[in-house]
Amino acid sequence: MNHLLIVGTGLIGASTGLALKAAGFTGTVTGFDASGHELEVALERGAIDIAVRSRDAALDAARDADVILLAVPVLAILDWINLLGPILKPGQLVTDTGSTKAQIAEAAAKLFTTPEGPHFLPGHPMAGKESGGAAIAEATLFQNAVWIFTPTATTLTAEEREWRSWMTKIGAKVLDLDPSRHDDLLAWVSHLPQMVSTALSALLEDTFGDDEDLRAIGGRALREMTRLGSSPYSMWRDVAMTNTKPLADSLLALEQRLQHLRENLRTPELREEFKKANKFREPR
Amino acid sequence: MNHLLIVGTGLIGASTGLALKAAGFTGTVTGFDASGHELEVALERGAIDIAVRSRDAALDAARDADVILLAVPVLAILDWINLLGPILKPGQLVTDTGSTKAQIAEAAAKLFTTPEGPHFLPGHPMAGKESGGAAIAEATLFQNAVWIFTPTATTLTAEEREWRSWMTKIGAKVLDLDPSRHDDLLAWVSHLPQMVSTALSALLEDTFGDDEDLRAIGGRALREMTRLGSSPYSMWRDVAMTNTKPLADSLLALEQRLQHLRENLRTPELREEFKKANKFREPR
Repeated sequence: MNHLLIVGTGLIGASTGLALKAAGFTGTVTGFDASGHELEVALERGAIDIAVRSRDAALDAARDADVILLAVPVLAILDWINLLGPILKPGQLVTDTGSTKAQIAEAAAKLFTTPEGPHFLPGHPMAGKESGGAAIAEATLFQNAVWIFTPTATTLTAEEREWRSWMTKIGAKVLDLDPSRHDDLLAWVSHLPQMVSTALSALLEDTFGDDEDLRAIGGRALREMTRLGSSPYSMWRDVAMTNTKPLADSLLALEQRLQHLRENLRTPELREEFKKANKFREPR
Repeated sequence: MNHLLIVGTGLIGASTGLALKAAGFTGTVTGFDASGHELEVALERGAIDIAVRSRDAALDAARDADVILLAVPVLAILDWINLLGPILKPGQLVTDTGSTKAQIAEAAAKLFTTPEGPHFLPGHPMAGKESGGAAIAEATLFQNAVWIFTPTATTLTAEEREWRSWMTKIGAKVLDLDPSRHDDLLAWVSHLPQMVSTALSALLEDTFGDDEDLRAIGGRALREMTRLGSSPYSMWRDVAMTNTKPLADSLLALEQRLQHLRENLRTPELREEFKKANKFREPR
């Protein structure tokens, strides 16, 4: 890998650039972002070496890149897959950081079809913050984080192996999952927590607004449970759109569980719920 | 205040002892705990000077104490109020750290009736951890934390003023609330987050048990949202028993909000929910 193109130089894209450089990558990193501001910040911070300032210029850069990393929201990744599929050559690798994987893997399989042609390796680093942007990118963001891949081909190309080895060099732990299993699991560990935090924050906003006492007495529990309330709609719309069924299933299950707990606030069944919760939190 | 009796030398009771000593309290601190282990740890760590090892011995110590701090779960606080009410003298102050205040204030008002008699000042420090015990007590636990009081009398006695000033000296911010308003607000900022975390943890335990992938990919969002799943039933049973209606109301409201969000995963209404959540999280 001598030339990497990062499409989307926000938190994840810029952090990947910084992490690769910190891990010894000496090739060229070209960056593109729909936001001129994000692009400038990524350039200033050294996450990318070259900034291209239009989609056409990014597509030109893509023709020359060894690896193209799509670090934008899921629906935009689907657009880029359709743009890149027809113009790439054998030996080129496209990979991504999208939050859902089934629709991306499916779209890529339609355009990246032959073992000899360009390849697509769906990926998803389990790292992030409640806000985004190149300004808060960090070279260490992926250290000890899991970087999931959901490969659809049975054997890996040399380019795929090299990209995976770079993910290890930046400190991530590589984990392979089936795309639909990825989306089912992520619905529970990421998308459900996000929606609970959003719903609780929105409900508190409606119920209490500027109530100073509420804000004065809210401690760590409230801060933690509402932290993800800061997350941007722009990213989560795409998750909700592309993982609707697993997310709706997990939400419904939690609604029913909360109802069960509510109906048992004064019965011994509450003890059983605490016991199970305690067990989930025990070290395995 | 020359002699303080702490009933319950777990996390909150022992931390109060350590904090008072660090802030310059040079009187005697006597401690009692139903658990001999907690009592020994509190003594070893210097949170208390003298350990009394039976309830009768604690009642004897109470007769001599200037201030008696009840730092046990709510139902046990109610028991101690009934034990102490008849045996104390004018000038003595009882205060507590219970998580709910309406039932405690009501019970105390029946036994601590005259301005000239012993007084009861209901209190609640907004500090804690998901696990308890004197072993993890800290002198700094209350720094910048809010220590709520729900006084029922209109004027404060000299003893109440002194206790409140000690709470300021240990770094807490004193806030007065009406008991039932306390319980309503706490249902939202503390009890609801606890029950959501318990329900989510119990649901994940039932659904995934030992699934290694789930545990591997679970990041900060999952850790935060399930942290309180470790909380002990013994304490939260009393909260659920003594604040049932406000807690049930907040749970029902959240269930309905989650349903609304679930039914709008693919509609523009999802944007409105994120907007409101973002607004709640903005600095005021």
